[in-house]
Amino acid sequence: GQNGNYTMPTNSVVQPLLTDLYQVTMAYAYWKTGKMEDKAVFDLFFRKNPFRGEFAIFAGLGECVKFLNNFRFSCSDIAYLQEILPNVDQGFWEYLSQLDASQVVTMSAIPEGYVVFPKVPLIRLEGPLPVIQLLETTFLNLINYASLVATNAARFRITAGDGVQLLEFGLRRAQGPDGGLSASKYCYIGGFDGTSNVLAGKLFGIPVRGTHAHAFVNSFSSLDDVSENVSFLDFCCFLSIFCQLAMSWLTKISPILNILEHETNKGELKAFLAYAYAFPRTCLCLLDTYSSTCVRLDSGDLAYLSRKCREAFVLIADQFESPWMKKFTVVASNDINEETLISLKEQKHEINSFGIGTHLVTCQKQPALGCVFKLVEVNGEPRMKLSEDVGKINLPGKKSVFRLYSEDGLAILDLIQLCSEKPPEVGKKILVRHPFIESKRAYVCPYKVELLYRDYWGNNGLTQSFPSLQELKKTASDSLKTLRQDIKRELNPTPYKVSVTNEMYNFLHELWLKYAPIGELS
Amino acid sequence: GQNGNYTMPTNSVVQPLLTDLYQVTMAYAYWKTGKMEDKAVFDLFFRKNPFRGEFAIFAGLGECVKFLNNFRFSCSDIAYLQEILPNVDQGFWEYLSQLDASQVVTMSAIPEGYVVFPKVPLIRLEGPLPVIQLLETTFLNLINYASLVATNAARFRITAGDGVQLLEFGLRRAQGPDGGLSASKYCYIGGFDGTSNVLAGKLFGIPVRGTHAHAFVNSFSSLDDVSENVSFLDFCCFLSIFCQLAMSWLTKISPILNILEHETNKGELKAFLAYAYAFPRTCLCLLDTYSSTCVRLDSGDLAYLSRKCREAFVLIADQFESPWMKKFTVVASNDINEETLISLKEQKHEINSFGIGTHLVTCQKQPALGCVFKLVEVNGEPRMKLSEDVGKINLPGKKSVFRLYSEDGLAILDLIQLCSEKPPEVGKKILVRHPFIESKRAYVCPYKVELLYRDYWGNNGLTQSFPSLQELKKTASDSLKTLRQDIKRELNPTPYKVSVTNEMYNFLHELWLKYAPIGELS
Repeated sequence: GQNGNYTMPTNSVVQPLLTDLYQVTMAYAYWKTGKMEDKAVFDLFFRKNPFRGEFAIFAGLGECVKFLNNFRFSCSDIAYLQEILPNVDQGFWEYLSQLDASQVVTMSAIPEGYVVFPKVPLIRLEGPLPVIQLLETTFLNLINYASLVATNAARFRITAGDGVQLLEFGLRRAQGPDGGLSASKYCYIGGFDGTSNVLAGKLFGIPVRGTHAHAFVNSFSSLDDVSENVSFLDFCCFLSIFCQLAMSWLTKISPILNILEHETNKGELKAFLAYAYAFPRTCLCLLDTYSSTCVRLDSGDLAYLSRKCREAFVLIADQFESPWMKKFTVVASNDINEETLISLKEQKHEINSFGIGTHLVTCQKQPALGCVFKLVEVNGEPRMKLSEDVGKINLPGKKSVFRLYSEDGLAILDLIQLCSEKPPEVGKKILVRHPFIESKRAYVCPYKVELLYRDYWGNNGLTQSFPSLQELKKTASDSLKTLRQDIKRELNPTPYKVSVTNEMYNFLHELWLKYAPIGELS
Repeated sequence: GQNGNYTMPTNSVVQPLLTDLYQVTMAYAYWKTGKMEDKAVFDLFFRKNPFRGEFAIFAGLGECVKFLNNFRFSCSDIAYLQEILPNVDQGFWEYLSQLDASQVVTMSAIPEGYVVFPKVPLIRLEGPLPVIQLLETTFLNLINYASLVATNAARFRITAGDGVQLLEFGLRRAQGPDGGLSASKYCYIGGFDGTSNVLAGKLFGIPVRGTHAHAFVNSFSSLDDVSENVSFLDFCCFLSIFCQLAMSWLTKISPILNILEHETNKGELKAFLAYAYAFPRTCLCLLDTYSSTCVRLDSGDLAYLSRKCREAFVLIADQFESPWMKKFTVVASNDINEETLISLKEQKHEINSFGIGTHLVTCQKQPALGCVFKLVEVNGEPRMKLSEDVGKINLPGKKSVFRLYSEDGLAILDLIQLCSEKPPEVGKKILVRHPFIESKRAYVCPYKVELLYRDYWGNNGLTQSFPSLQELKKTASDSLKTLRQDIKRELNPTPYKVSVTNEMYNFLHELWLKYAPIGELS
């Protein structure tokens, strides 16, 4: 039930074959050419913040840990691989069938839920070259969408403000069953209050919400058939009493609200009463099945309609001395995106709760986060992929990352350095540099220094217990609070500074010059 | 292995709780108010073609059938629901725990893989109101993304033409593990030749492809360490022979290709040779780890670079009388979308095979297909949801759909009619009408008439065996062939005609007038 435990569906499909074939063919080529014991370091990072923003929320790490824990090729996996790669040496299949991540892989990572930035390695994996290579695709699959949708949720939360309830309603538009479950989970971490997805509630302990649909209203046609069903006498009795009551209130209220009695739909009334009968304490009615206004319920009109509803509640509450009515909950859910939320806010909407589906779970504004997984060291030697595009160069070598804070608790910058360097010290001035623009340098004197990496996977498996979903949600919320407001704002946000030490700068640029070919002009 | 059986991962998460909470609360309200035996008909359809196109491919039906087959609430499901809905009558939980779709639900649908169009019900479900209501979200989840990505794949195929190989490389950018598996499966149905996703290959029998990544090239640094590993004498021997051979050919070839010997990267050569050693029959090398050209590999340049490669192959082939070299396979995979394919074609690219990831699986152009599930009949009485927006009105009543063909085998139109009407007859002139525009009418005399609905689920469960993935792929390809070229083209495609009979037209409009409120002008 609502246990809040961070459990995966027992029927998870995360297994070693959930990878690209080239990981297997590369692993074989490493094995075949004597590189199977080469010690590799890979970094997982993204190059650009999503949604034209200046931050992301890191999510999906827990799933990666579980994947490492279950990383074993089954006999049927091996049999299938032998079938599609028939010319591979038998010895490789023996090697694969004995592989196990627990003895040979080390993983350090930024904690799940933290705000993170481009170029900063989120995960650092060390181990035999073919083994780490075999992890790449699955790690990217587990991190990319999780972080993207958690970031999207966080952005919706920042835009909506803390005073409203945000519910994820995206199951029907997600990429299949598991896409829907991931969306529910990571939107919750990113700042949503609940979901409509019942299975997500059961598996992850996320609060589940929902009332009724248009079909429910449509299934009731009129008041005529009230007494048709003699085995439901209690309901028929309730209906006849409350219909009379409703009709008499309609007569009193219609002149105040300036509506005509005959314009109201009696089937709709019956549907609402039926729902109230079933859920007397949590009744919420869906209003627009029979649209009697000539407006569409798009963004601007949602603000208008919500204000009209509130006005009506207040008017009736005052007239009949029922102040509790003023606070009736108004929920809206009609194709809402970040821009809608901004526009609704400007128009002073009266909505208490938003149900958000398509734009949230599909991340319409940018449906993929481009996390990459790059080789940065082999047997202690740094590696980098060169590119004419500076944005595509990776930072070579085994690195550490520190987050430096000022006295007010806000993050100043992330500092990337070589593992061999001394950590920055509190109260001590350090020179920090832009990784690629020579002239961009600054001195910084941190009030607090945080090593961003924790060890999650060591020589004998998991090195620490993993936080609950509730804890991850709190981590994300706390981490966002350390971020300056101008970095989080929707319009023209300020970029957060990702810096390198002077030593890292020199190391990177020497290596770059060493590897980059010298052209010849003709 | 490559069995081609349409099997689902045994660890599928499709279970009744994968639904929105409001389906459960509505089911309870139906049960509580005596409507649990009301006989409902629901239609599943979409309102607008995706990707600014004029067709879609229907996919996901097989999963819906499996879901129906497994539709049973477990004890732990009921326990969880009791926890989140504490004030619900015990009798409802007994009712739920005994629910089973096999006795009470009937499903007719268009065959999976068919080209389909807006407003035409893809699936028609009949049964007790609360039961069908409980199926809605899961059906939408299973159909929406499957059909969207199959359609996207079909569009890529149409744009690329039949002469090239299309491979799905999207696992790392999909919505989690199952999003990746769905993408592989439905892209294959839609017209792709294979995937990089090994698990999709194992589970669905889809051909799997892949070679190596930049990391592989990066892991080899130079030719110096050739003989470092004495336990790999065979490889060292191969390397030293082939390196010499390669270097001597480099001397011969470099003046012909106008390149400088020292510009080539020896680590890259070693990586290629290592890969060739492991895969002597299927060696494919990734070229741009060390970019020695000053161009980025974007769309225009992919065409240029592929032509440059082909020119080089032809030049060398002619010079050294090795004609087989002219036909070397060129594969490209760099952020390719539909527009890139069009532009590459215009520039006469020389690419034989495309690996397509992000844009294919995320359906960047339109990341959600808006399938809806609407109540159209209760106890024999038609139902419709009214809307000021004609596009949002559903066609009421229990309906049949026929596809009419002309003599050349092409589809003329889809004709929606009431189930009570006589089917259209071959060779007989019929009046067909636009469902909403009064003046749009035509006579049509079909050469062939196809009832689009098949019965998939009857009174005792599955009513026919379900086609294999290979068969679904062929269905999609055949069905696309019945569609006129101008409906399939990328730019300004012609809309396909979805029509209603005169009787259906009158039925719809009478009902509309009956339900729509008459406004009052003030």
